[in-house]
Amino acid sequence: MVWRESAKERAAVEAVKLVKDGFVLGIGAGSTVAYALREIARRIREEHINVLVISASSQTSQLARQYGIPLTSLEEHLHLDLDIDGADQIDKELNLIKGMGGALTREKIVASVSKTFVVVGDESKLTNTLGKNQPLPIEVLPFSLPFVMSEIKKIGGQPVLKKSSSGDSPFITDNGNYVLNADFGVIKNPWQLNRKLKSLPGVVETGLFLGMADMAIVGTERGIKILRKNQ
Amino acid sequence: MVWRESAKERAAVEAVKLVKDGFVLGIGAGSTVAYALREIARRIREEHINVLVISASSQTSQLARQYGIPLTSLEEHLHLDLDIDGADQIDKELNLIKGMGGALTREKIVASVSKTFVVVGDESKLTNTLGKNQPLPIEVLPFSLPFVMSEIKKIGGQPVLKKSSSGDSPFITDNGNYVLNADFGVIKNPWQLNRKLKSLPGVVETGLFLGMADMAIVGTERGIKILRKNQ
Repeated sequence: MVWRESAKERAAVEAVKLVKDGFVLGIGAGSTVAYALREIARRIREEHINVLVISASSQTSQLARQYGIPLTSLEEHLHLDLDIDGADQIDKELNLIKGMGGALTREKIVASVSKTFVVVGDESKLTNTLGKNQPLPIEVLPFSLPFVMSEIKKIGGQPVLKKSSSGDSPFITDNGNYVLNADFGVIKNPWQLNRKLKSLPGVVETGLFLGMADMAIVGTERGIKILRKNQ
Repeated sequence: MVWRESAKERAAVEAVKLVKDGFVLGIGAGSTVAYALREIARRIREEHINVLVISASSQTSQLARQYGIPLTSLEEHLHLDLDIDGADQIDKELNLIKGMGGALTREKIVASVSKTFVVVGDESKLTNTLGKNQPLPIEVLPFSLPFVMSEIKKIGGQPVLKKSSSGDSPFITDNGNYVLNADFGVIKNPWQLNRKLKSLPGVVETGLFLGMADMAIVGTERGIKILRKNQ
């Protein structure tokens, strides 16, 4: 799967072509997004474009600072021109599972305030059915953990608490919460599942991004593939 | 309104009559709940009942410890026999607005895992229509504040950020989040409003407790009034 890294990079570079001078950009988290940041930095340096970035994760903020990309906040800019973010799975209708990196809630907020949301990744992220070989990340309040785990099991999920990179303590989101990766098998009705999960007190957000993405730019072994909403 | 304090106390004492030996109890937060804790402590001391309490707020936990009431957690006990909690408004169908104290999310979780949920308060909490002269508390992630405030205004609410008791900084919930008190005027369809608010990324929970309370025990100027669900 060596091709996957160059495929991600191709997708990221293609997505950054959509960035125009003066844009306020949302940037998510993850490995493909890291390539996008590098390309944005290059365009700032070589093409002298002005952009401001709202980052959805502390890791992305750190990387943006390293590249010298100027950051802003939702307090300053509530309407973004474009959001570029990765995904764990992308179906034909551009519904997504996101959040294996743990930044799902902030990513969903940033996507919500963006005029255009472009999802990037390599071709292995495309699926016919969300949930197949892919757990769904769900951000939960630590206090609610036993309750939410029990409720997820009742509706057919197998929740596993995401661990920190050292592996000996729970992963903590930028919002101070836990993440459950819940295996539901094939998710036949993602809208219904999302509603059920969101109705549980203690569930902060789910990794189901439904009807949000406008375009997917997917790196293949040799090139890129572009999918648009309702095509 | 001197009668209100004794009315709250009467309601709380009546509610604690429902506590049986061996119960695992949920206890919310607020002034009426403080009377309930005092009465539970009295029954433990004088009647030697065994109870365990799961508290929905750090303030309630502190008060319980002062009274020597044994505390437990959702990790230990996921099914509670009884939850006693206050409310800001109670309508005829026992739908509630809760959370002006800021503990709404944990209160909702505790109410969700309780076999019976009894709401206590004085008669001034009864209303024909939720939302009349009563803002709705909504817990939000700090990151999402500008977005959620803007969305609340779009659906007709006037959100005000809850301040800490000193008044010069935002109030922070036990979950590390902010609370918006949003005035929607009379809330004609609380179920629909709750769904809309919960669908916003960054909204952790709303203070609308719909179809959850089984009984309301309300202190009046001279006595108490008991309302049951679907009566």
